[in-house]
Amino acid sequence: MFETNLTVAGKVVTEITRHTFPNGDRKTSFRLMARERRFDRDTQDWVDGDKVFLQVNCWRRLAEGVAVSLVKGDSVVVTGRFYVREYFTDSGERRSSNELDARSVGPDLAWCTVSVERPPALAPASIGTPPEEVVAAA
Amino acid sequence: MFETNLTVAGKVVTEITRHTFPNGDRKTSFRLMARERRFDRDTQDWVDGDKVFLQVNCWRRLAEGVAVSLVKGDSVVVTGRFYVREYFTDSGERRSSNELDARSVGPDLAWCTVSVERPPALAPASIGTPPEEVVAAA
Amino acid sequence: MFETNLTVAGKVVTEITRHTFPNGDRKTSFRLMARERRFDRDTQDWVDGDKVFLQVNCWRRLAEGVAVSLVKGDSVVVTGRFYVREYFTDSGERRSSNELDARSVGPDLAWCTVSVERPPALAPASIGTPPEEVVAAA
Amino acid sequence: MFETNLTVAGKVVTEITRHTFPNGDRKTSFRLMARERRFDRDTQDWVDGDKVFLQVNCWRRLAEGVAVSLVKGDSVVVTGRFYVREYFTDSGERRSSNELDARSVGPDLAWCTVSVERPPALAPASIGTPPEEVVAAA
Repeated sequence: MFETNLTVAGKVVTEITRHTFPNGDRKTSFRLMARERRFDRDTQDWVDGDKVFLQVNCWRRLAEGVAVSLVKGDSVVVTGRFYVREYFTDSGERRSSNELDARSVGPDLAWCTVSVERPPALAPASIGTPPEEVVAAA
Repeated sequence: MFETNLTVAGKVVTEITRHTFPNGDRKTSFRLMARERRFDRDTQDWVDGDKVFLQVNCWRRLAEGVAVSLVKGDSVVVTGRFYVREYFTDSGERRSSNELDARSVGPDLAWCTVSVERPPALAPASIGTPPEEVVAAA
Repeated sequence: MFETNLTVAGKVVTEITRHTFPNGDRKTSFRLMARERRFDRDTQDWVDGDKVFLQVNCWRRLAEGVAVSLVKGDSVVVTGRFYVREYFTDSGERRSSNELDARSVGPDLAWCTVSVERPPALAPASIGTPPEEVVAAA
Repeated sequence: MFETNLTVAGKVVTEITRHTFPNGDRKTSFRLMARERRFDRDTQDWVDGDKVFLQVNCWRRLAEGVAVSLVKGDSVVVTGRFYVREYFTDSGERRSSNELDARSVGPDLAWCTVSVERPPALAPASIGTPPEEVVAAA
């Protein structure tokens, strides 16, 4: 069978953590929470609905882009491969964790604005400006 | 029946246009192209695959965030309601256009890094700094 | 924020259960497992990959269609609203359960064939023909 | 970049056609239309909303399952790889067509019930029973 794809718009609810593996691979992870908002006809007001929790894992270039750009509290849109990781606790109990190996992550422009630091090939106007300075000025 | 949801990761391939309706509603639109990359076993190299084209429409806060943050050429992830708009040309021929009313749009951090201008309520560290200055420095 | 939509192709791994609420609403539920298959370059063979587990809930007409048509072991495709339900065990421990309120469920025709019992309004040819005979003739 | 996945619940609006390629591959195709239903607050009634049109292509076992099981008019749920195919008309004009290479297709049990003909490996009770009788008894 095929991979299960999932797109979630929600909030980064933990610090963003980076991990480098012995072979040099880098992973950036954070926990994402999405909460529905529903219109309550009785109170004629918006109320909180159900929630989704996921551990989001980012690899390669995406790991770098996320680590440099996002912080806890940011609203993001994430799409990728969804799976349930099963593990055992120290006391031998079975647990599971919702995981999303991200293909794309972006800050949700419904909730913020951003200055994009475009790679040189896409941003001729930035020629002569070292990337470090662009980041430092932000 | 229900809405058809669609998530696409691709590139902004037109200028981003803004439109204000007589009632004050604002819409920001752009054309999005996604192109698959496939591994060709014969040549042992990555080659271009099929494409997706969509007109992306953004409303309210998202219209503002997109207009301020993105330009032609940016890689983005977009999720929203997909539909096919049918219309007739001046010469009476029937045509159709793929449309996506976006719920979330973000620059794809696999392809760039960003400086997020966080709304004051979410960025206590920025207290004392007028939002204008934060934007101006970016 | 919005609902989180999810589509999963997998197997019904429990009996299908029906529940009628005091107000007359009916719910049909089952547990769904999807398992990825990946091509292992070392062994040059397909191997099992990650899994997804979900509780699928069906309401109204869909509850009836699922209860009448499916059994444990069937391969199905399901799409709907995904959320994580949090609850406490009798001993006070916090747990969570992946839930999918289904909008559409169908037996996956990659794994079986079916005889569709079409509602009369959609099957003019069946007028005057009892449903049993339509099935037998299919 | 990655494939664009899409799930659509809609109706089969053409006859289902089968095609066998010179190399023996078989494809089953049909046209799918999904139409939104929206609640109109002014009239306090449900009205038709936007539409989605797609050409659905099925391969291998799925081609067989769809060809045997579905007919024009059936409500189905389809998930797969979405792309836009570009072509030129005889008069040299550029056109495009929305295509979905299906991974899973099923009759939507919100709109019908079905008798599943389960493959022998999954249906031990059917051993020795011709498929026709299994259907008749269902």
